[in-house]
Amino acid sequence: MLCQLLFLCYLTITLPHPTTSARKPDRLRLPSSRQDDTVFCESWRFSVETNNAGNWTVVPSRCKNFVRTYMTGPQYQSDTYFAAEPALSFVRGLNGSDDGLDAWIFGVDDTLISSLPYYQLHGFGEVFNEVSFYEWASMADAPPIAASWTLYKELQARGFTIFILSGRHEHFRDITETNLISAGYTHYKRLILRSESDNGKLATDYKSIKRKEIVDEGYRIRGISGDQWSDLLGNSIAQRSFKLPNIMYYIP
Amino acid sequence: MLCQLLFLCYLTITLPHPTTSARKPDRLRLPSSRQDDTVFCESWRFSVETNNAGNWTVVPSRCKNFVRTYMTGPQYQSDTYFAAEPALSFVRGLNGSDDGLDAWIFGVDDTLISSLPYYQLHGFGEVFNEVSFYEWASMADAPPIAASWTLYKELQARGFTIFILSGRHEHFRDITETNLISAGYTHYKRLILRSESDNGKLATDYKSIKRKEIVDEGYRIRGISGDQWSDLLGNSIAQRSFKLPNIMYYIP
Repeated sequence: MLCQLLFLCYLTITLPHPTTSARKPDRLRLPSSRQDDTVFCESWRFSVETNNAGNWTVVPSRCKNFVRTYMTGPQYQSDTYFAAEPALSFVRGLNGSDDGLDAWIFGVDDTLISSLPYYQLHGFGEVFNEVSFYEWASMADAPPIAASWTLYKELQARGFTIFILSGRHEHFRDITETNLISAGYTHYKRLILRSESDNGKLATDYKSIKRKEIVDEGYRIRGISGDQWSDLLGNSIAQRSFKLPNIMYYIP
Repeated sequence: MLCQLLFLCYLTITLPHPTTSARKPDRLRLPSSRQDDTVFCESWRFSVETNNAGNWTVVPSRCKNFVRTYMTGPQYQSDTYFAAEPALSFVRGLNGSDDGLDAWIFGVDDTLISSLPYYQLHGFGEVFNEVSFYEWASMADAPPIAASWTLYKELQARGFTIFILSGRHEHFRDITETNLISAGYTHYKRLILRSESDNGKLATDYKSIKRKEIVDEGYRIRGISGDQWSDLLGNSIAQRSFKLPNIMYYIP
């Protein structure tokens, strides 16, 4: 909320008045009408999906309905395919090797399985409530994301070794494994979860360390599919990264 | 074009039939109607702006009108502000230092100045024609991008050292400098262009090498603003990167 106010102030106060330049830059049309809410929220989505936004905690209040419409309509589902399809093209173009050391890393929530049913129950734009999320997650009933499921199966058919690297805690290993299997994800090499010693680490750091362990075992990380930039950035990164859409929450 | 056909085939043929899983993933609604063209092109934009798409050469033919509408309407301009505004917030939150070694790197085309007038003349979705582009660029009349102009001026007011790093060739130094000045960009530290020895290098590599030279001079690269992922990725990267929108062309 504060961010939006500051943004509006910024637009109002600091729009350029380049007295020294040969011409004045165009002014940004201020978001005011209903239509401009959509422009604002589309731009907010752009800033989140490109990681321009950096650390953010809640969906801007004026974008809650936008997020609901996006997530429950055809666009979100289509966007997940535009994270999987270039990955499939990339994989099909690789020179295969039979040593079993070509690896792919997937995240869990909103990469392999969807937490959309949770947010449909609890609303979009609330501060993340860990207790109620894991209460829901303990039902182990999160559905698969079809595009990721397709990619997962093709990678397995091509002999890739699949690692699943999640920010979920070891406490939730059983429900996570149950959910992955019920969603159709089997025969992965390892499900890596946060142990006590990983507590307090930023996701980017925790995941970089775990990826380094994979590399040190001799694997080549060909690709990562993740809905958070903290899945994709840091050290021991992949040859190619694929960002799944997620404008529901941000994990630093 | 081929990619789109393959994508449709892929959707039609390889959509998941998870006989071993507890449930079937949802199917993607195939793009067929006018409305679905928008869904398709919005997803294509998502894949380009997240770098999922990787190397692409032309706008898909069914998205040419989409790109024109996007670029000439309020959304593009608003999106440029959502690349500049988080950069301003980041800069304002930094502990300033007076040693003049805090650096910021900007690209030229479609970061500081806009080539939209060129594409409005030559159409969206044609293969890039270097001859006609530089014919147009030699007029040195590309307008500033207002959001970047605002960021540029605030960085200067805060004592940042500004480097401008472009894939343009040294041949075009004069017209580039003339255009930057006429667009209101003055007092930058250095305009870095491709010399003969940089010919044939991928933009990511060329820009990494040039950034390393900046770091080796003692500068701290706090931020990069660029419209291409090849401005932002590689080595000697910035503390924070800010992706300006660009769905007109891709530079590897």
